[in-house]
Amino acid sequence: MKKDKENIPSINPDFLVPSKKRERIDVHSLFAGIKAGSWQDLSRAITLVESQSKKDKELARQLIHLCLPLSGSSFRIGITGSPGVGKSTFIESLGLALIDSGHKVAVLAIDPSSSLNHGSILGDKTRMDRLAIHEHSFIRPSPAGTSLGGVARTTRESVILCEAAGFDRILIETVGVGQSEVTVHSMVDFFLLMLLPGAGDELQGIKRGVMEMADLIVINKADDERELLAQKSKRMVQNALHILPATAKEWKTPVETISALKQKNVKRVMQLSNQFFDLVRSNNVFGERRKQQAIYWLDEYINFQLKNTFFDNPLIYQKYNEIKEIVRDNQLSPFEAADELFQFFLKSNS
Amino acid sequence: MKKDKENIPSINPDFLVPSKKRERIDVHSLFAGIKAGSWQDLSRAITLVESQSKKDKELARQLIHLCLPLSGSSFRIGITGSPGVGKSTFIESLGLALIDSGHKVAVLAIDPSSSLNHGSILGDKTRMDRLAIHEHSFIRPSPAGTSLGGVARTTRESVILCEAAGFDRILIETVGVGQSEVTVHSMVDFFLLMLLPGAGDELQGIKRGVMEMADLIVINKADDERELLAQKSKRMVQNALHILPATAKEWKTPVETISALKQKNVKRVMQLSNQFFDLVRSNNVFGERRKQQAIYWLDEYINFQLKNTFFDNPLIYQKYNEIKEIVRDNQLSPFEAADELFQFFLKSNS
Repeated sequence: MKKDKENIPSINPDFLVPSKKRERIDVHSLFAGIKAGSWQDLSRAITLVESQSKKDKELARQLIHLCLPLSGSSFRIGITGSPGVGKSTFIESLGLALIDSGHKVAVLAIDPSSSLNHGSILGDKTRMDRLAIHEHSFIRPSPAGTSLGGVARTTRESVILCEAAGFDRILIETVGVGQSEVTVHSMVDFFLLMLLPGAGDELQGIKRGVMEMADLIVINKADDERELLAQKSKRMVQNALHILPATAKEWKTPVETISALKQKNVKRVMQLSNQFFDLVRSNNVFGERRKQQAIYWLDEYINFQLKNTFFDNPLIYQKYNEIKEIVRDNQLSPFEAADELFQFFLKSNS
Repeated sequence: MKKDKENIPSINPDFLVPSKKRERIDVHSLFAGIKAGSWQDLSRAITLVESQSKKDKELARQLIHLCLPLSGSSFRIGITGSPGVGKSTFIESLGLALIDSGHKVAVLAIDPSSSLNHGSILGDKTRMDRLAIHEHSFIRPSPAGTSLGGVARTTRESVILCEAAGFDRILIETVGVGQSEVTVHSMVDFFLLMLLPGAGDELQGIKRGVMEMADLIVINKADDERELLAQKSKRMVQNALHILPATAKEWKTPVETISALKQKNVKRVMQLSNQFFDLVRSNNVFGERRKQQAIYWLDEYINFQLKNTFFDNPLIYQKYNEIKEIVRDNQLSPFEAADELFQFFLKSNS
């Protein structure tokens, strides 16, 4: 894999070019390029997967089908945390540590809010400048999209492409908007939650359910005067974990204080994630979880398509928004309202 | 409201009689009976809401529409906990305490597993014999149903009927099967989690996400030799709650040790729930939450109907089960599989 280290675009320019203006794509040669580790072909393939054009979608389908058997031996790591927690700095540190141990690292992102500004997270690669120019890394900003379902599909298929290109450590970053943590959790093998040092009240800002998904919790910015506060937060989080269900058989979610900026304990985080990887590979949690995730996405995507079909009808959409207000005001039972909309839907489709 | 105290059926016999064998129903006189507080009419109305017949469904729709404006001033309390935690004993104690303070108490249940045995929880009213025969109480076993969506609708509409009949405290019990806690949480104003005294490992049995939904946690069976263990559990749970998000503005989820059997601290639980009620009524969390719940059920029920339409097609159902195995084995991307099923669905519907 070769990169022009002098000229890494902050957003892949293919991303912004309508598909018809691009050269004709041959799926088999693109697949060969990916397998050979071409950074350009991987980039092009992800753009194809992100495309909304019907023709591109069919090509993407063929490509994913070819790549699918090559995935499966990688380790997918999800990373979440509030804005300002230091995710980019941490991902750069962790990514470089992983590369030092002989891995190839791809960094993807899910950010539903990025549909407004074309990739707000990871869009600015200068925040990971050392990782971005490394020949064993690949960084791709969050895909644009109007729905989490669409963005999820794109990212999950990009993972498959990266794996086929030989990347064996996939980091997926998310900022906690809407259901994005659940989305990322459902496509990774290991889920890492980043917190800032703080006392009870600050820690209460953690979103509902996120704590219980974490296979590892790190308290970042544990440096200088925040070291003591970080230790206190660590104990509080450990206390909480005592009574939360384990995320995997034979695993107790560790809590570590780190400083991504000063690279303190980042190697320790890598070791812990490797321990988890070894454990879940040996006790078969890994394979079982991936199978469950595949079924989860099958079901989710059927639902997503069904909802799209329903709400794509502008009359239904308008009627839904009207009826919602009536339901909010307790003038109509939500079930009766749903029945009404549904009857309307069936009639307009028959 | 009059009950024949000598002859309370453990399951309402209407429940087992096909609708066509029942007398013709006049919605307006049924509504008048409910408003007048007739236990028999309320029972009959719930049976109507539970009916699968198309004619009954239309009558139920009209009835709910009439009752809806009468709901809204009640307080809906959800109660969950593992089997053996003592839910029935607790509900009897709490119910009697509420009646002592001048309330009228209805007890409903959601138990998705009860479709197999027609109401496993609350079916045996002898477990609440003092509450069951009280003239200010109404107990109804979990409705039978093959899907949580259907059961949820029936229960939520039964709540409306009970409220129209003047019951101002609605207790909804659930055993933690599948998504039943989320279902109950989405239809109550106050969610109470019951635990048994235990150390870290036992407490880890609590299902993912349930701890974070609880507005109040009680540790039951804190009597005799378990008193100390219960106190220890209380401290562990309190520690965990420190860093979990608050369930409502200005509310810190209390943890209480109780003994439902010896009626220890049950009044305290009632007082705490009243405090919560006063708080959320005054800071408008109550009204806002009910509005959100109504929209939640509107959306859920649209999804439920869409999924039913999809899977009711036996060819789709068969194809889905076949394709699921292929997706599980990573031979096909879940998105591609979903697309395939969806195309098939669109074709067979056009």
